[in-house]
Amino acid sequence: MSARPILVDGLQYGRWSPGIFQQMREGGVSAIHATVAYHENFRDCVEHILAWNRRFAEHADLILPGRDAADIERASAEGRTAVFFGSQNPSVIEGDLRLVEALYALGLRFLQLSYNNQSLLCTGWREAEDTGLTLMGREVVREMNRLGMVVDMSHSSERSTLEAIAASQRPIAITHANPRWWRDTARNKSERVLDALAESGGMVGLSLYPAHLKDGSDCTRASFVDMARRLADRIGVAHIGIGSDLCQDQPDEVVRWMRVGRWTFGDPDAMGLGKAAFPAQPAFFRDNRDFPTLRAGLLAGGFSAAEVDQLLGLNWLAFMRASFGAAAQPAIPARSLAAR
Amino acid sequence: MSARPILVDGLQYGRWSPGIFQQMREGGVSAIHATVAYHENFRDCVEHILAWNRRFAEHADLILPGRDAADIERASAEGRTAVFFGSQNPSVIEGDLRLVEALYALGLRFLQLSYNNQSLLCTGWREAEDTGLTLMGREVVREMNRLGMVVDMSHSSERSTLEAIAASQRPIAITHANPRWWRDTARNKSERVLDALAESGGMVGLSLYPAHLKDGSDCTRASFVDMARRLADRIGVAHIGIGSDLCQDQPDEVVRWMRVGRWTFGDPDAMGLGKAAFPAQPAFFRDNRDFPTLRAGLLAGGFSAAEVDQLLGLNWLAFMRASFGAAAQPAIPARSLAAR
Repeated sequence: MSARPILVDGLQYGRWSPGIFQQMREGGVSAIHATVAYHENFRDCVEHILAWNRRFAEHADLILPGRDAADIERASAEGRTAVFFGSQNPSVIEGDLRLVEALYALGLRFLQLSYNNQSLLCTGWREAEDTGLTLMGREVVREMNRLGMVVDMSHSSERSTLEAIAASQRPIAITHANPRWWRDTARNKSERVLDALAESGGMVGLSLYPAHLKDGSDCTRASFVDMARRLADRIGVAHIGIGSDLCQDQPDEVVRWMRVGRWTFGDPDAMGLGKAAFPAQPAFFRDNRDFPTLRAGLLAGGFSAAEVDQLLGLNWLAFMRASFGAAAQPAIPARSLAAR
Repeated sequence: MSARPILVDGLQYGRWSPGIFQQMREGGVSAIHATVAYHENFRDCVEHILAWNRRFAEHADLILPGRDAADIERASAEGRTAVFFGSQNPSVIEGDLRLVEALYALGLRFLQLSYNNQSLLCTGWREAEDTGLTLMGREVVREMNRLGMVVDMSHSSERSTLEAIAASQRPIAITHANPRWWRDTARNKSERVLDALAESGGMVGLSLYPAHLKDGSDCTRASFVDMARRLADRIGVAHIGIGSDLCQDQPDEVVRWMRVGRWTFGDPDAMGLGKAAFPAQPAFFRDNRDFPTLRAGLLAGGFSAAEVDQLLGLNWLAFMRASFGAAAQPAIPARSLAAR
C-alpha cells in the first residue's frame, strides 16, 4: 500500500462512521481536515475532539490523529487516513486568546477567523459590512503564527481575507471555496483574493459542495476541471488543492445549525440564508470513493500526472509541512506534538 | 426618609462593600446601575450576580435588588439603594441569543452591545472600522426589546450607536458618557449621536470618570455643570441623567481587565490603550457622598429645582419605568419579575 499517491482533502464534515472511514480507504484518501465546530464554544468543541479520540482508538485500522505533515505520509504508507482538526468559527476561543494554545495542544490545526457572520476577529461573507481584522483578530493571527495553526478564511469576506493574508507572517489557507468568476456567490473568492493568496504562498482547496459549483448539483466534471485548469494557469498549480466540503450522511438539521447556530430564532429560508437542507452532490463526486474519478478527469482535462499529484495531495502536504508547529526553526522537520 | 428626592446613578462599578452602600445612603442614592461584567462569559457573569444576591441578603438594611422602576421608589422611601444589573459587554451571551432571556431572568436590565472592541453585535469605540449592527446584533436588539432589557451604547462607536437607535423599537441609553465637544475622545459622543438619542426618547448619563471629563481629574464642578446646561439647552433636560462611572476602591488590575480582558497578551500602555491605573476623581465628586455637592452646583449653574430633580433621578426613573418588562401593555405599570 505504500505506493498509494498522497491524497489530501482540505475540508470534510461527515456524520463520522466506520463506513465513511472505509470509503476513505477505498478512495485512497491519505488525510482530511475535519471540522470540529461551526458555532460551538470551547467546551462543546472539546467534546467533539474527545469523540474523535474515541474513534481513533476504536478504528485505528482506518484512521489516525493528524498532528503534523509526517502523519500524512505515515497514513498513506499504512493505507489509513490522517484526520486533522479545524474549527470553522472562532467561537471556540470565546474571546480568550489563551484558548488558541489550548486548542493547539488538543490537536486543532486550522481555525477560520469567521464563519458566515461577524466574529470577534473579522467579518463573515453574509454581513453587509466588512471591518477587516479587528484588534483581537490581529492578536489571534499573531498567536496562530507563533503556534503553527493555519489561518483559514474560507467563509470570511473580501477585505477581512485580504487583511488576514497581509497580517499573517505565514501563508494562510482558504480550505474550501471556488473562484467567484466560475460560480458567482460572495462565498466564493474574487480574483484579487486568489491572486493575493497565491502570491503570499497560500493554498486554496477547491470545493465540491453544490452551492459553490457552477450549475450546483448538475455541475459536470469537465466544468470543474476546466475551472481548475484556468485557475492553475492564473495563480499556479502549486497553490491549489481540494477541499471538497463533503458533508456526508448528515441530517438536514445540521445545515440549520450551520446557518443559524444560536444567533437567531428565525427560519433560515425565510431570512434569505438558504433552505436548511443538504443539496445532492454532483454525479462525479458523491463521496470519498470518487477521488479516482476526479483524478481521471484532471488527467483528461490538461493536467500532467505530476500536476495531478500536486493538486490532489502534494500541495497540501507541502503547505502543512511548512504550516504546523513553531516557525522559528525552519530547518527542523515537523515534529510530533509530544516532542514540542 | 420618604422625603428624599429620587436619585439615580446610571453606572457604577465599585469594589462593593457595606462601606460603599453606607456612603450611598449618605449621598441619598436611590438606585444605581451596577456593572456585573466587562469581558466575562455567561458563567462568570452569573457568579457576579450570585455574589450580589448574597450582598442583598447580608445588607438588606442598605440595598435591595432592582428589577423594575417601582423598586427605585421603594428604595428611596426606605432609605435604601436599589441595584440594577448591567453588563458592559455582550460576551455574557456568548453568541447564544437564548441567553438574553436567561440573563433577564437573573436580573440583568442593561446590556452594552459592545465594550471597547468589536463584538458579535456591533463595534466598540477603539476599533478603526465600524460595521454598525451585525446580523446577530439586530436579532439581539429585537430580543432585548421584547424582554425589556435596555440597549446601552456607552462604549460603542458612532455608526453602531446610530444604527442601534434606529433599529431599537424602544428608546435606548448611553448610560455613561459625555459630549465629545466638551472632552474630545472617541469614547464621548458626537452631537449627531446625542441628537438622535434624544429624538428617539433615549437617555444619556453624564459621566464623572476623569477620562471623559474636560481637564480630567482637574475638571471643575462649574465646567461640568456648564456642559450639562449647554447639553440640556440642545437636547432637552428630559434626556439627561447621571452615569458617574464611579469605580470606587478598585485596585489597578481592574483597569487592566477593562482594557485588555483576555483578547491580548500585550501591555495596555504600550499598545496605546492607556495606563492600567485609575485616575484621581475630580475634587467635586469623589464618591457617592458628593451627590449633594453636585446638586448644589447644578442649582447654582442655571438649572431650576425641578430640572435638578429630573436630571439627578426622575429622568432615569421615567426611562426605566418605560423600559423594563414587556412592551405590549403600555397602560400597565411596571411589574415585578415574579408577576411576569
